[in-house]
Amino acid sequence: MNKDFIINSFETLRSETPLVHNITNVVVTNFTANGLLALGASPVMANAIEEVADMAKIAGALVLNIGTLTADSVEAMIVAGKTANQFNKPVIFDPVGAGATPYRTETARRILAEVNVSVLRGNAAEIANVIGEEWSIKGVDAGEGAGDVVSLAQKAAQMLNTVVVITGKQDIIANGKETFIVENGHPILTKVTGTGCLLTSVIGAFTAVEDNLMEATTAALVCYGVAAEIAAEIKGQEGPGSFQIEFLNQLHHLSSEKIQLLAKVKIQ
Amino acid sequence: MNKDFIINSFETLRSETPLVHNITNVVVTNFTANGLLALGASPVMANAIEEVADMAKIAGALVLNIGTLTADSVEAMIVAGKTANQFNKPVIFDPVGAGATPYRTETARRILAEVNVSVLRGNAAEIANVIGEEWSIKGVDAGEGAGDVVSLAQKAAQMLNTVVVITGKQDIIANGKETFIVENGHPILTKVTGTGCLLTSVIGAFTAVEDNLMEATTAALVCYGVAAEIAAEIKGQEGPGSFQIEFLNQLHHLSSEKIQLLAKVKIQ
Amino acid sequence: MNKDFIINSFETLRSETPLVHNITNVVVTNFTANGLLALGASPVMANAIEEVADMAKIAGALVLNIGTLTADSVEAMIVAGKTANQFNKPVIFDPVGAGATPYRTETARRILAEVNVSVLRGNAAEIANVIGEEWSIKGVDAGEGAGDVVSLAQKAAQMLNTVVVITGKQDIIANGKETFIVENGHPILTKVTGTGCLLTSVIGAFTAVEDNLMEATTAALVCYGVAAEIAAEIKGQEGPGSFQIEFLNQLHHLSSEKIQLLAKVKIQ
Repeated sequence: MNKDFIINSFETLRSETPLVHNITNVVVTNFTANGLLALGASPVMANAIEEVADMAKIAGALVLNIGTLTADSVEAMIVAGKTANQFNKPVIFDPVGAGATPYRTETARRILAEVNVSVLRGNAAEIANVIGEEWSIKGVDAGEGAGDVVSLAQKAAQMLNTVVVITGKQDIIANGKETFIVENGHPILTKVTGTGCLLTSVIGAFTAVEDNLMEATTAALVCYGVAAEIAAEIKGQEGPGSFQIEFLNQLHHLSSEKIQLLAKVKIQ
Repeated sequence: MNKDFIINSFETLRSETPLVHNITNVVVTNFTANGLLALGASPVMANAIEEVADMAKIAGALVLNIGTLTADSVEAMIVAGKTANQFNKPVIFDPVGAGATPYRTETARRILAEVNVSVLRGNAAEIANVIGEEWSIKGVDAGEGAGDVVSLAQKAAQMLNTVVVITGKQDIIANGKETFIVENGHPILTKVTGTGCLLTSVIGAFTAVEDNLMEATTAALVCYGVAAEIAAEIKGQEGPGSFQIEFLNQLHHLSSEKIQLLAKVKIQ
Repeated sequence: MNKDFIINSFETLRSETPLVHNITNVVVTNFTANGLLALGASPVMANAIEEVADMAKIAGALVLNIGTLTADSVEAMIVAGKTANQFNKPVIFDPVGAGATPYRTETARRILAEVNVSVLRGNAAEIANVIGEEWSIKGVDAGEGAGDVVSLAQKAAQMLNTVVVITGKQDIIANGKETFIVENGHPILTKVTGTGCLLTSVIGAFTAVEDNLMEATTAALVCYGVAAEIAAEIKGQEGPGSFQIEFLNQLHHLSSEKIQLLAKVKIQ
C-alpha cells in the first residue's frame, strides 16, 4: 500500500496546526492536550453549554469522549456535535466504557443517533456494545471477545454509516466498503491511561486537515503507532512512566522519514 | 512479623487485576489511573449519579476521595457507597482536607455516617478532624500536631468501627484491636501531588483481592512504600518530576523479591 | 536593575510555603499542583460554592483561571474573589481564551468587574480582548497580533487599575505607572500545556509573601523563566515530555545563586 497519503497528511498537519476541540474526560485532559501539542496540533478543551457551539464553529474538528460523562457534559457534546455537523466539521467519537454501565451504552447510542459522527473509535467491546453485539467488557477496558474484529468493524461501519476504528493488537479501519489494517503500535500503550483517548483526539487532528476520512484516520493510526514504537524502543524497558514521557517526545520528533520507514498498513 | 501475607496479596492482585472504581478529585485522576495500571490493577473513574451504582456493583472495590468535592460528586459518592455496601464490596475513603473548611469536615462525617467505610485513610490532621479531635491543618496538608498518632488511629478505629490508616513518617494501621506500623516510604512523596490519593486507591486494589482488611491495607502500604523507596534511590536526587515518573516505573517493576527484601512492618 | 527583591521574595516563599487557593481548569490541575509544590508553595484546589469562601480566607492568595469554565465554577470564582478582597488576599486572574468565544470574553470582563483583581495575566490576544482591543485569537493560544505589546499592557493596567502581565517572547509587567520587562523563559514552554496557567499560580504564590505587586509578579516571572531555561538546557533536546518533567525538577532545585546569575529584567 502506498504510504504517500500518510506522509502528506502528516506534513499538512504540521504546517496547519489545526485547532482540535475536545469534550473529553477528566482523567486524560492533560495528556491529550500535551499529546496534540507534541504532534503539532492546537488543542482546546471547552465543555460549558454556553460556549461549546462557538468553539466547535472555529475548530477544525470536534472530539467527543464519554470517559467521565455527566448529564451536563453529554448535553454539551450534543450541542457541540450538531453545530459541528452544521458547519461541516468532522466529529470523532470515543464511546469509552460503552457496555460497562447502561448509562454509557445508552449515551453512546444517543450521541450516534443525534450527531452525525465522522469517525467512531473504540476497542472491540465498546464497538460491539454500541451496535448491540454480544461482547464482554470489564470497566472501561476491552474484555476478551471471541468475535472476528474485522467483521465487527465492517458491520458497525455499515450499520452506523460512519468510519469505524477498532484498536487492539491490530487496528481496523472500516467504512463499510473498504477496510484497512494498521499494525503499528506497542503493547505498553495499554499500561498508560488515556492512550486510546489521545489517539481519538489525534484522529480528530488528522481529519481537520484531510477530507478523506479513511485516509486521515489511517494516517493518524500509523503516526501514533510509529511514535509509540520508537518510544517503546528507547524507554519501554524502564516502565510505563518513562514510556509515557518518551511517547510525548517522539510525537514531537516524528518525521516523514520515520513514517516511511516504519508504517505498517494494508488493505484487508 | 511474617511477610507472607503481603507477598500473597501482591501476587493475587497481579493475577486478578481487580477493577477499582474511583470517585476522586480532578487533580489526581490521571496519576491515580496510571498508578493503578502500573501496579497491576484496572482503574475506572465514574462519578455520574446515573451510573455510579452500576459501576460500584461490577468493581472489586470503591474508592471515595473528597479532594475537589462538589454537591453532585458527594451525592454520587453516597449512592455508590451504599451500593458497594449492599454488594459487600469494600469502600475506601480519603477525607482530603477534612478540617480545612467546614464543608469538608461535614461531608467527611456525612459519608462516614451514611456509608459503611471499610478503610479510612488520611493524614493525622484529617483523621483528627473527622472524629472531632483538636489538630491544626493548613489547606489539604497535615499541620503539625503534638498528638500521639498511634493513639489517634486506635481511637478513630474504635469510634468509627473501621480500619483507620494514618500516613506520615510512619504509617499506622488500626482496627481498634490490632495496630500495625509500616515504615516504608520516602519523604519525597510529599513533593508530588496525589501520592496520598493514589495510596488510598492502591489500598482499594488490595482490599479487592484480600478479605482481611488489616492485611490487605498493610500489604498496600508496604508495596507502595517499597516502590517509592526504590524510585527515590534511582531518581530522587533529580527532583520530584523525575521521581514521580520513576515511581510509576517501580510500581510496574515491583516483585515479591523486592517486597521480601525491603518490607518494614511491625505490630505495635 | 537590582535583583535583590527577586531573591528576597524567593527566599521568603521558600521559608513560608504559602497556601495558594486555585480555582482553575481541569487540564492543568495536576501540573499546577506539582509545580507549586516543586517551587515550595502549598497548593489547594477547591471550587465548590459551599467552601470557596472558607478556603479563600485561609489561603495566602487566590488564583482564578477560566480555562474550562462552567456556570458553577464562575459563580464560585466570584464568591471566592469577593471573599479574598474582603480579607485583603491578592487575587490573580488568568482569562484563558478570552476572545475565543463570547462566553469567555464576557466572563473575563464580569470577573474583572465584580472582583478586585490584583494581577491579570494572559497572552497579548487575551489581554486585548478583555479590554476590547482588536487582536486575533485561535482557540486558547495567542494569535499573531501586530500591536505593540508594551503599550497594550500599559493601557490595560490603566483601564483596569491592576497589574497586567502579558507573556510572550518577552514578558511585560505594567501597573499603569511603571513597566518592567522580563526576558527569561524558553520557547519550549509553548509545547507544554498549562505552562501559562502554572505561571499564573506561581505569581499567586509570590504575591502571598510580597506585598509589592510589581515586585512579587516580576520575581515570579524571573524565577519561572530561570527554571525553564535550566530545564531546557538539560532536557529540551529530548522533547516536550522530558522538558516538562525536568522543569518540575528545576523549580525544586531553584536557588538564589541561579536567580542572581540568570535573571534578565529591566525597566522599560
